[in-house]
Amino acid sequence: MEQSQIKTPKPPYYTVVFTAKMSEDTDGYETMAGRMVELASAQPGFLGIETAQNPDGSSITVSYWRDEASITQWKQNLEHEAAQQAGRERFYAGYTVRVGRIDRDYGFDRAD
Amino acid sequence: MEQSQIKTPKPPYYTVVFTAKMSEDTDGYETMAGRMVELASAQPGFLGIETAQNPDGSSITVSYWRDEASITQWKQNLEHEAAQQAGRERFYAGYTVRVGRIDRDYGFDRAD
Repeated sequence: MEQSQIKTPKPPYYTVVFTAKMSEDTDGYETMAGRMVELASAQPGFLGIETAQNPDGSSITVSYWRDEASITQWKQNLEHEAAQQAGRERFYAGYTVRVGRIDRDYGFDRAD
Repeated sequence: MEQSQIKTPKPPYYTVVFTAKMSEDTDGYETMAGRMVELASAQPGFLGIETAQNPDGSSITVSYWRDEASITQWKQNLEHEAAQQAGRERFYAGYTVRVGRIDRDYGFDRAD
């Protein structure tokens, strides 16, 4: 999943900024991460997700949501809860989750 | 610049989520990007910056700010304005800037 420049609706909408550093124990990570993107995309209120990963194993994933209730519901999804636990126990050396509201956006596309 | 897991103060604070796709014309980009990080870091209200770039040239850069006024002031910095123009004319095929407020955060660090 390396697309960027996804389309989101007119603000306000909500965001989760997930910054992480991988551990050494990455066996099975890609499968789990792909499954979580698939699962998140099917949640009510999901607007989009973008991710980028550096060669050193640090990464940023930003997801966009219609409202805070959608974010809370996604956090509490049972399969996602299991993935969060696997993340803490195995895949990540550390991560930070930041939740907030996007108030304005603008952009540029050479193709326009 | 590949660090992640920077420390930010207790929310609320403000964020700029910059997602971009590189063009083919990248000569001089790294120098300019490094200079912009250096310059941003010296701005009033700057709290931190994190970036990740995929092999396909898509990237996410998230910066954190004390208030919206600091973000506006940084956008209008003259050297930054010149860089924004170079970004549109040369370095980027497209980008999106999203500005918002972080209301809560939490994390996990295996070293703790």
